[in-house]
Amino acid sequence: MTLDEALADGGPAAVRRARAWLSRAVEPGTIDFWRFVDSGGPVDAVRRIRSGTAPERIRALVGARAEQDESLPDLRRAERCGARLVVPEDDEWPALALHALTVAVSEEPEDHGAQSDRTLAPVPPVALWVRGPARLDELVDRSVAVVGSRASTAYGDHVAGELGYQLGERGWTVVSGGAYGIDAAAHRGALAAAAPTLAVLACGVDRPYPAAHGALFHRIAETGLLVSEWPPGCAPLRHRFLVRNRLIAALTRGTVVVEAAARSGAQATAKRARRLGRGLLVVPGPVTSAMSVGCHELLRDAEAGATLVTSAAQVIEAVGGIGTDLADPPERPTFPRDGLSDVATRVLDACPVRHGVGPERLAAIAGCDVLEVLRVLPALELADLVQWTATGWRLTPPGRAGEAGEDDRAPGREDG
Amino acid sequence: MTLDEALADGGPAAVRRARAWLSRAVEPGTIDFWRFVDSGGPVDAVRRIRSGTAPERIRALVGARAEQDESLPDLRRAERCGARLVVPEDDEWPALALHALTVAVSEEPEDHGAQSDRTLAPVPPVALWVRGPARLDELVDRSVAVVGSRASTAYGDHVAGELGYQLGERGWTVVSGGAYGIDAAAHRGALAAAAPTLAVLACGVDRPYPAAHGALFHRIAETGLLVSEWPPGCAPLRHRFLVRNRLIAALTRGTVVVEAAARSGAQATAKRARRLGRGLLVVPGPVTSAMSVGCHELLRDAEAGATLVTSAAQVIEAVGGIGTDLADPPERPTFPRDGLSDVATRVLDACPVRHGVGPERLAAIAGCDVLEVLRVLPALELADLVQWTATGWRLTPPGRAGEAGEDDRAPGREDG
Repeated sequence: MTLDEALADGGPAAVRRARAWLSRAVEPGTIDFWRFVDSGGPVDAVRRIRSGTAPERIRALVGARAEQDESLPDLRRAERCGARLVVPEDDEWPALALHALTVAVSEEPEDHGAQSDRTLAPVPPVALWVRGPARLDELVDRSVAVVGSRASTAYGDHVAGELGYQLGERGWTVVSGGAYGIDAAAHRGALAAAAPTLAVLACGVDRPYPAAHGALFHRIAETGLLVSEWPPGCAPLRHRFLVRNRLIAALTRGTVVVEAAARSGAQATAKRARRLGRGLLVVPGPVTSAMSVGCHELLRDAEAGATLVTSAAQVIEAVGGIGTDLADPPERPTFPRDGLSDVATRVLDACPVRHGVGPERLAAIAGCDVLEVLRVLPALELADLVQWTATGWRLTPPGRAGEAGEDDRAPGREDG
Repeated sequence: MTLDEALADGGPAAVRRARAWLSRAVEPGTIDFWRFVDSGGPVDAVRRIRSGTAPERIRALVGARAEQDESLPDLRRAERCGARLVVPEDDEWPALALHALTVAVSEEPEDHGAQSDRTLAPVPPVALWVRGPARLDELVDRSVAVVGSRASTAYGDHVAGELGYQLGERGWTVVSGGAYGIDAAAHRGALAAAAPTLAVLACGVDRPYPAAHGALFHRIAETGLLVSEWPPGCAPLRHRFLVRNRLIAALTRGTVVVEAAARSGAQATAKRARRLGRGLLVVPGPVTSAMSVGCHELLRDAEAGATLVTSAAQVIEAVGGIGTDLADPPERPTFPRDGLSDVATRVLDACPVRHGVGPERLAAIAGCDVLEVLRVLPALELADLVQWTATGWRLTPPGRAGEAGEDDRAPGREDG
């Protein structure tokens, strides 16, 4: 069936065919093109472009592609690799998540010279090519992006893998770009927790890039999803990665940056997340690591509004529901002397290790009154911190009280 | 000369003798005692305590010590180890730095039951025992505290040492507590830069603790200063470390926490620095390190008001003069394609690696107009990014353009 015949029908099939055609007509992320499609609907948009009645700006954007039609081969090619085209008219369309892009694009000026650069412009996708068994809207409902450098360190890979695993285990979808380094580690972590994960690609879902991640993409597509704005067969051209990144931000509740080099794309990621009202979470690292410099820049930049996170629990606390999903504070051991009063602490410090001394001597060392000493000694004895000997009071020898090992431990010798 | 005889004189020697006596009479950091000394002056304070005419609260604080007098032996003992007593009446007194404590103590309530705990109370010292050749006020003028865990890791030691060295080299005094771990690494870093460094001790300057740091303290005292509120011979009782910590905060323009365990003293350090209007600077570390957990807690706690720092330059920027001492942003390499327009980037990406193609083909792949392609090609050729061949335009082979190695590099193959 030719394109014109398919469009004549006007039903869901026509809409799908039209959006398939539109997804190849102009590079995604083009504000004016999305507005044109949005205003008259996809079927009308295709008709006007092909008949030459579209506005000049739209005709210039489409250029020579107006004459071509790969929509049917694209749909067939998708089918052959187990993929499908999800369009805004489908129930599966992640409308809630992408709403942030619709809002943001409405704030862009009319004059395209004044609009955001295409690599940063917040534009909803015209359609999404999707490969895998999961439902797109369900998978992104509770999702977090985990992104970072391709040239990650073993530390970054470890942290991304742990985050991916922990998030997956707690029912959160890890969204990333399928790239080398942090992306792959995050996806693999989620897969290790038997959790579906979602890779947003900058190329066709039938030719995932990088090629060395073929097995990884295959595993992702078994339980999760590979998602792309570009039709099957499209190459991962460089500028497409940047355009793709807005989808990673929009589809998720927040973005975790695990490792980033100095002045890398991390700032753009931050700006995008903030503009879409998404949380920006950043994992710190050694200040000696070049791969954490970008993370630390984000955390130092008050405008970036980044939150430092060190665990999946803290990530979930930041992006999860208010009041639910709260992370426990880190634990510390407790010591018998925790909670002692100032005077009790001083009396305890004044007690010698070996030969017991009387309350008067303790009062002189501790710098307090004898009555105060006599008031706190029973509690100290009850806590097994001091003991009575023939010559007076002394510290309970180690092994009896669980005291040793705290940081501030100082010798109990008295003032000379 | 007895104490009473010495006081009768009323001159500078009487003041020094009185403050020597007062520094042993009551534990430092006691709000009511400092207020009593401050209101009538040191000579009058000693007289009233010894004659029993001081208020009951003061007499209770001094207790049995009212009868004793170690002031002359203390001053002699100090002299023997090359130390001296610096009093508020001296030019050398660091009045500017300690003014923050005077202000803060004035906000404490009259009722001592409602006052801050002595380990946290902001109280100026009655006097300072000082050992070393440097002038106290000059040394603390441009100073930074570098503190952290005693149980530091190799990472923490490395960072503290680097900070100490870099700060020292740039003319800043490193102030710390002379303890194991971060403190020692910071002092050693400063010494390695041949810069004077200052250790604030929780014991007498003649018996520095820990004993294993004897050589370190000796080196510090050769060019810098050992400083203590406690008279010579006093033991490093546990509670004294906490009381001492307020001086480290007050004497410096800001405090850098390098490593801290979960829920360690770092929160107290933060609270103290904030209360004194000092900057709190925190070095992040691997999220996998227990010794960075306390640092990350501080950075996550909005109330702590901590600033993440990764270098001495950033520390100086934070505590130095406004507009001066600015840290350079981290550097990144530049690439020939930096600054290319959106269309130029897309045309560049569309260029094949081997066989050149015509502008029409480039326009179709890049998704733009042929005229736009023709407009950007000259600039790309000028930048040596593309070249003209018999069959059309292609990418300049690697080795000619300085292009390889950037993160986002994607294959230049065209859409299939």
